[in-house]
Amino acid sequence: MKIAIVGLGLIGGSIGNKLKDQNSKFKIIGIPRRKKTIDLAIKLGAIDEGTADLTAGVKEAEVVFICTPISLIIPTINRIAPYLKQGAIVTDVGSSKEQIVEQAEKIMAKGTFFVGGHPMAGKEKVKLEAAEADLFQGRTWILTPTRKTNPRAIQVISRLVVLLGGKVMQMDPKTHDLVVAVISHMPLAVAAALVNTIADEKKNREKMKKCAASGFRDTTRIASGDPELGIDMFVTNQKAVLKALGSFKKSLSRLEKAIKSGKNSAMAKELAKAKKFRDSIYR
Amino acid sequence: MKIAIVGLGLIGGSIGNKLKDQNSKFKIIGIPRRKKTIDLAIKLGAIDEGTADLTAGVKEAEVVFICTPISLIIPTINRIAPYLKQGAIVTDVGSSKEQIVEQAEKIMAKGTFFVGGHPMAGKEKVKLEAAEADLFQGRTWILTPTRKTNPRAIQVISRLVVLLGGKVMQMDPKTHDLVVAVISHMPLAVAAALVNTIADEKKNREKMKKCAASGFRDTTRIASGDPELGIDMFVTNQKAVLKALGSFKKSLSRLEKAIKSGKNSAMAKELAKAKKFRDSIYR
Repeated sequence: MKIAIVGLGLIGGSIGNKLKDQNSKFKIIGIPRRKKTIDLAIKLGAIDEGTADLTAGVKEAEVVFICTPISLIIPTINRIAPYLKQGAIVTDVGSSKEQIVEQAEKIMAKGTFFVGGHPMAGKEKVKLEAAEADLFQGRTWILTPTRKTNPRAIQVISRLVVLLGGKVMQMDPKTHDLVVAVISHMPLAVAAALVNTIADEKKNREKMKKCAASGFRDTTRIASGDPELGIDMFVTNQKAVLKALGSFKKSLSRLEKAIKSGKNSAMAKELAKAKKFRDSIYR
Repeated sequence: MKIAIVGLGLIGGSIGNKLKDQNSKFKIIGIPRRKKTIDLAIKLGAIDEGTADLTAGVKEAEVVFICTPISLIIPTINRIAPYLKQGAIVTDVGSSKEQIVEQAEKIMAKGTFFVGGHPMAGKEKVKLEAAEADLFQGRTWILTPTRKTNPRAIQVISRLVVLLGGKVMQMDPKTHDLVVAVISHMPLAVAAALVNTIADEKKNREKMKKCAASGFRDTTRIASGDPELGIDMFVTNQKAVLKALGSFKKSLSRLEKAIKSGKNSAMAKELAKAKKFRDSIYR
């Protein structure tokens, strides 16, 4: 099976690494933006061969993974659609889905198929050098089929996700966007606002900087990610992010009231609920 | 030098471990709430001997570290004050200082001294079993002397902090409370509110739980701490915490407006500022 990967960063590289480990009958064609990335990707064992020529690269592929930044997914599909062979399946790894799936379904030519995807895995470092075959091991990989999605295409992509170590979870694009707004996009806004609370502090900023310990470090880790990725999330998932921010502000306001009241029981209720629920996720 | 440690949890145990490593002339007396903790603390090398009798334990000590939960610091000082020997110095490790220092200074008898302290180190696990000699290595340890504080007492505690691996930083109690409200107490409220945003979600809660990945895990880690410690922070540092929450909400509201505007430049400004400032703290 010939598999093309467009975009060789952390996600694209990790997909290549793992697929090459799993099955020697796969032929992995890497399509990076910059030609010099090809040699590195071959050296790291992420691809079998590469080209910077997008349309030539996807021509013989049965499956195409689009692993570019969100803002380039639709432009990429637009460019490759006329060159795909009959039966080819395209999937992506973008962290918002409603806009992408809707547009992709309109673009794909007859006899070629699109399945929206989003692996719940990542790191702060997003370059190819950070790729690792086990990045998706045990992680949820969301697929977002619609009524228009071809059932065989879902099956093929699901099997590949399992080979990649992921756990397939299906939901419609809109639900996906609401879910990731709450667990990923909105928390980025919160983390950035936390850091900026110190950055904007006039009097005690340097003292705060020196005293910030491991708690603040972890709470704000995602704010050190690439701002471009964050903007993509906020732009392509705007509605759900604003809704999630509304829910968060309600939740914070309840705790703020409890602190203002000075009543231990009111504070205990909120803190204990949070501890109990978080421990149920991560233990 | 005889050093008493009241409260043998993570902080008290780690202080004992390190002081015993550093100087065999120290005699470390541990004073836990429960008698059975004494054997464990001796076994772990955190103390030389122990007693559950508070007043007997501190009688011969030249320095007393109070490592109890915040709400027990003043009651402890109240009980031991009449039994301290002349020249004895008491310090604490509580994460709020203004109330504690003000009250402690009133309680201490003539010829005995108090120095407020707060090591910027911790873990989610707060029991003695988690103690480690290197907990304070390279970490800021805030001391909060006032005009009333005895200079020799500051010097003695500062030397001990250096032996413990800490970096002494002096500030007045009020400034301390403003600083930790922003870097520690307010972020706890934010992390708890983030978790509760999912906990209160009616429709998609289970999906969110399954999809929450490493980003959400780190952003909310501190919400898994002991709720009692959180309540202590919010009660004893109420004013500064509410002020910090106000600053945070302003910062979040600016980013929210940028997301609403859909303007990349407005979002980029906030996200890039946060990334730049955070990278300047942690790299």
